[in-house]
Amino acid sequence: MLGWRRAVSAVAASCVRRLSMAKSKFEYVRDFEADDTCLPNCWIVVRLDGRNFHRFSEQHEFKKPNDDRALHLMTKCAQTVMQELEDIAIAYGQSDEYSFVFKKNSRWFKRRASKFMTHVVSQFASSYVFYWKDYFKDQQLLYPPGFDGRIVLYPSNQNLKDYLSWRQADCHINNLYNTVFWMLVQRSGLTPMQAQDRLQGTLAGDKNEILFSEFNINYNNEPLMYRKGTVLIWQKINEVMTKKIKLPKETEEKEVEVTRTRTKVVPLHCDIIGDQFWEEYPEILAEDS
Amino acid sequence: MLGWRRAVSAVAASCVRRLSMAKSKFEYVRDFEADDTCLPNCWIVVRLDGRNFHRFSEQHEFKKPNDDRALHLMTKCAQTVMQELEDIAIAYGQSDEYSFVFKKNSRWFKRRASKFMTHVVSQFASSYVFYWKDYFKDQQLLYPPGFDGRIVLYPSNQNLKDYLSWRQADCHINNLYNTVFWMLVQRSGLTPMQAQDRLQGTLAGDKNEILFSEFNINYNNEPLMYRKGTVLIWQKINEVMTKKIKLPKETEEKEVEVTRTRTKVVPLHCDIIGDQFWEEYPEILAEDS
Amino acid sequence: MLGWRRAVSAVAASCVRRLSMAKSKFEYVRDFEADDTCLPNCWIVVRLDGRNFHRFSEQHEFKKPNDDRALHLMTKCAQTVMQELEDIAIAYGQSDEYSFVFKKNSRWFKRRASKFMTHVVSQFASSYVFYWKDYFKDQQLLYPPGFDGRIVLYPSNQNLKDYLSWRQADCHINNLYNTVFWMLVQRSGLTPMQAQDRLQGTLAGDKNEILFSEFNINYNNEPLMYRKGTVLIWQKINEVMTKKIKLPKETEEKEVEVTRTRTKVVPLHCDIIGDQFWEEYPEILAEDS
Amino acid sequence: MLGWRRAVSAVAASCVRRLSMAKSKFEYVRDFEADDTCLPNCWIVVRLDGRNFHRFSEQHEFKKPNDDRALHLMTKCAQTVMQELEDIAIAYGQSDEYSFVFKKNSRWFKRRASKFMTHVVSQFASSYVFYWKDYFKDQQLLYPPGFDGRIVLYPSNQNLKDYLSWRQADCHINNLYNTVFWMLVQRSGLTPMQAQDRLQGTLAGDKNEILFSEFNINYNNEPLMYRKGTVLIWQKINEVMTKKIKLPKETEEKEVEVTRTRTKVVPLHCDIIGDQFWEEYPEILAEDS
Repeated sequence: MLGWRRAVSAVAASCVRRLSMAKSKFEYVRDFEADDTCLPNCWIVVRLDGRNFHRFSEQHEFKKPNDDRALHLMTKCAQTVMQELEDIAIAYGQSDEYSFVFKKNSRWFKRRASKFMTHVVSQFASSYVFYWKDYFKDQQLLYPPGFDGRIVLYPSNQNLKDYLSWRQADCHINNLYNTVFWMLVQRSGLTPMQAQDRLQGTLAGDKNEILFSEFNINYNNEPLMYRKGTVLIWQKINEVMTKKIKLPKETEEKEVEVTRTRTKVVPLHCDIIGDQFWEEYPEILAEDS
Repeated sequence: MLGWRRAVSAVAASCVRRLSMAKSKFEYVRDFEADDTCLPNCWIVVRLDGRNFHRFSEQHEFKKPNDDRALHLMTKCAQTVMQELEDIAIAYGQSDEYSFVFKKNSRWFKRRASKFMTHVVSQFASSYVFYWKDYFKDQQLLYPPGFDGRIVLYPSNQNLKDYLSWRQADCHINNLYNTVFWMLVQRSGLTPMQAQDRLQGTLAGDKNEILFSEFNINYNNEPLMYRKGTVLIWQKINEVMTKKIKLPKETEEKEVEVTRTRTKVVPLHCDIIGDQFWEEYPEILAEDS
Repeated sequence: MLGWRRAVSAVAASCVRRLSMAKSKFEYVRDFEADDTCLPNCWIVVRLDGRNFHRFSEQHEFKKPNDDRALHLMTKCAQTVMQELEDIAIAYGQSDEYSFVFKKNSRWFKRRASKFMTHVVSQFASSYVFYWKDYFKDQQLLYPPGFDGRIVLYPSNQNLKDYLSWRQADCHINNLYNTVFWMLVQRSGLTPMQAQDRLQGTLAGDKNEILFSEFNINYNNEPLMYRKGTVLIWQKINEVMTKKIKLPKETEEKEVEVTRTRTKVVPLHCDIIGDQFWEEYPEILAEDS
Repeated sequence: MLGWRRAVSAVAASCVRRLSMAKSKFEYVRDFEADDTCLPNCWIVVRLDGRNFHRFSEQHEFKKPNDDRALHLMTKCAQTVMQELEDIAIAYGQSDEYSFVFKKNSRWFKRRASKFMTHVVSQFASSYVFYWKDYFKDQQLLYPPGFDGRIVLYPSNQNLKDYLSWRQADCHINNLYNTVFWMLVQRSGLTPMQAQDRLQGTLAGDKNEILFSEFNINYNNEPLMYRKGTVLIWQKINEVMTKKIKLPKETEEKEVEVTRTRTKVVPLHCDIIGDQFWEEYPEILAEDS
C-alpha cells in the first residue's frame, strides 16, 4: 500500500515538476507583450460606442429619436465607471457613446493604454446589464450588448476642449436631424426612405423651419439632454444628516444635525463649447488635476 | 406671430449653423488618434482578468479552491465572446482569466488592437452579468464586476502553443497550491497565515505528499477542469432532428429524421502542452485559419 | 586672497550644486521616451533610400541608366554596415536603396527600432562620404548626402523572402524601363519627355522589343548587377598565407602555408525570387540565425 | 535570325511579365510597415550620440577634456542638419551628442518618427566626414563613425525647456568632472584609475576646490562652450553688400549698398536653464513656431 502510494505521488510529483519547469521554459512568451504606456502630461480620452446599437435599439423598442430610459442608463453606467476607476476628471455622453477624460498627470496603471480602455469598457458593459432593469422595468434585456473603445491623447487643454466640443457639436447635428426625421415618419407618415429623401441636402435652418412650420416645434425648446448630451463632473455635495449622539455628561441620546461633504458625480446638460462652462469649473482643467 | 416665428427659427438656424461649422473646426482632433494596427501574419491573443476578483469571490461566497458555478459562468461568457466576435480560433481559461486567440490572418476591424481588446472585454463583462443567475441562482450579484485586458502578438505557431502552455502550466501550479492550502485551512483548521507558512518553500512533490498523507487525496484524481482549465474550440456537431414533411403525392404528413451540421463552441479539459492535442485538432493552427 | 578664493569657490560650488539638483529635477523628462522594442521572433528589415538622389545623381554626373561607381560605392557602404553592426544576415540593394535584414532572434540593443534604424543610416551615410573618392576619383563630392530609413518586421521566412522578391522585382521593372528610356534619349536623341511618351503604356515585352529591334540589345545580356541588384551575404573564405616559422630543433626558419577561415561579406548578383538561392544558402534563414 | 530574335525577346518578355506580376504578388509585404506618426501638437526632439566615441576620440587624439576641433565639427554638422531639414526650431549640443527640436506643429513627412530620426542622423553622419578636414586638418579620419538617435515627444513648452535644461545640467556636471579628472591626470601625473578614486564621492564643491587649490583654476572662468555647450538658433542677419547697378537714364554703372536680411543658424554658449534666454528669444516657443 505504501509502495503504491509512493509510486503514485512520485508520478504526480514528477508530472508537476515537469510542469513547473515547463512554466519557466514557456515564460519567454511574456516578452512579446508590447509596452503601451501613454505619453506623460497629456489628457487621456477613452471613448466607447455601443456595438450594433441600431439593431439593439430596435429589438429593445427604444423610443425614437430619444429614449430617456436608454440615455439615463448610459449615464448611470458612466457614473459607475467614474466612481470605480481612478482619475477621471470629466465625461461626456450622447446617443450610444461616452467619452471619459483621465487627468493629464494620472499615473493609474502606469498609464498603460490597454488598462484604461479595457477597464472603462468592461465596467461600462457589466453596469449596463446590471442596471438595465432599473431603467427599462418590464422591457426584458434580450442579450448581453457589446461596446467598442478607443483611446486618444490630447497634449493641450485647448485640444481637449476642442475634442469635447467636437462631440457636442456632433450631438447637436445628429439630434436635429433625428428630431425632424422621426417627426416626418411618426407624425407625417413618411416612410424612412421618404423622410431621408426629404432631408437630403437640407441645411440646419431648413430643418428648424420644417420642425416649426409643420410640427409647431421650436427646436430650442427641446430637452437640453437631447440637444446638449450629458456632461459628468465631480462636485462637492453637502449632505445634512441627523445623527443620535450621547454627550458625556448626559444620560439621554440627542439628535444633532451633521453636515458631511462628499464628492459626487453630477450630470449636467449644458453647453461645453463656449468658455462659460470652463470658467465656471476651472478645477477640471487645473494643473494638479 | 409669423415674424416671431421667423425670428426664432433664424436664431436656431444660426445657432445650428455655427455648431455645424464648429464641428468641422473641431474635427482636427481626429488626427490625434493613433494607428494601432496589429502586425499581419501573427496570432493575436487577448487575455482578460477579473478586476479585484479576490474581493469579488469572497463577497459572492465562491467555494474554495474552485467554484464550479464561477468556472462555468466564465466559460459561458467566453463561449458568447467566441460566437459574437469574429475569427477566434481557440480560447483557454482558468480561474478568473480567459485568453482568446484570433486567427493569424484575421482582418477583423483591420486588425486594430483597441477593437480586439475592447470588444472582447465588453462582451465578456456584459455576459457575466447577463448569465450570472443561470449559474449562481439565489446568490445575488452585488455589483457589476470589471475586467482588464491586454493584447499580445505571436509570430509563429510554436510561440502560440508556448503561450497557451504557459497559461496551462500556471493553472496547474496555482491549482495544486490552492488545493493543499484550502485543505489545510478547511480540514486541518490552520489559519490562512499558518497554511501559507506551512507551504512556504515546498516543492510540487511535497504538496502532493501532504495531500495524500494528510487528506488521502490523490491530486491526479482531482477534476480535470480544475487541473487543466478549459479549452474552447469550434467543432462540427451533427444534430439529428425530426421534422414533419408532406410529400407531394401523399396526403398525410410524415416524420423524417434530418441531420444538420452546425459549428459549435465546445469546452474541453485536456492537456494542451503536449503534441497530442494539436495533432488531434490540426485545423486550429491551419494556414487558412 | 584666501578669503576671496573661498568666496569664489563657494559661489561656483553653490552654482554647480544647484545644477546638480536641477539635473535630478529635470530628469523626469526621460519618462517621455517611448519603448520601441521590436516584436521578438520576427525578421527586422531596415531599408534606406537616398534623399533627393535624382538631383544628387545629376549634380555628380552619374552615368545613366546605371553608374557602376555609384552602385559599387553603395555596396561598399552596405558591406561596412554589415561588418560594423551586429546580426545582419543578408542585405539587398539596387539603385539608391539598400535593405538590411537583422536575424529573427537578434537581441542587439534589446531590439529597439530606433537603434536599428539610426545605426544603419548613420553608418551608411558616413561611409558614403568616407569611401566616395575610392570610387569617384576626380569627381568631387559637392555636399554631404542624406538618407532616410524605415523599419519593417516580417514574422515568417516566407514573408521575408517575399519582401526581398518585391525589391528585386522592383529592380527589374525599373531597370528595364530605364534601359529603354536612356537608349531613346542617348541614342535616338529623344527628349526625356518624348521618351516618356513613347514608353507610356508599353508592356515589358514591348520594351524588350524596342531594345532589340532599335538598339540591337538583348536585355537578358545586360549586366546582372543592373538587372538583379546586389545581394550581400556572409561567406566563409579560406585564406592561404605563407608564414615563416622556426621549429624547436631546427636552426633555420621555414616557410609554411597556413590556411585561415574567415567570414566575409560577399556580393552576389543572382536571382533571389526563385527557390534556388535559398536552397543554396540555407544558413541565412536557419532557426539559430 | 528573326525567328531567333522573336524567341529571345519572347523569353525575356515572359520573364519580365512574370516578374511584373510577381511584384504585385509580393506587394502585400508593404502592409507590414507600421504607422509611426508622432502625436500632433507636441515638440519632437531627436537626440543623437556618437557611437563608441570614447574609442573614436582616443584613436583620433582628441584633446582632453575638450577638443575644440571636435566640438566645432559637431556644431558644423548640426548647422547643416538645421539648414537641410525642415522645421527645426532649436538645437543643443555638448560632448558627442546633439538634440534637435522640431516645431510643435511641423507636418514634415507627415510627422513620421522614422523620417525625423533617420534624416537627422544620416545628414549629421555624412556631414561629419565631409567637414572633418576643415577642422582636423592633418589629423586623418581613420574610419567612418556611427551615430545613434532616438526620438522623444514633449507636450508642453515647460517639458521642452526642462528637457533642454536636463541636457545642459548634464553638460555642466560632466564637464566639471572631466576638467578635474584630466588635470589630475595631465598635471599631477595620476593614473586614470587614481584620478577616478580621488574623485569618488566628491561633491561639486570639492571638485571646484581641487581645481582652485591645486591647479589655480577658477572653474567659472573656463570657456562657456565647455561649461554650457552649444545652442543653435535661427537669427535674422542683415548682410550689407555692394552691388553695381545701371540706372535707366544713366550711362555709367554705379555702386550701391544693398542690405539683405537672411535667416542664419547661429551658435550661442549661454545658459538655457533660467528664464532669460527664453524671454530674449520668445519666437522659439511661439505658437506658430
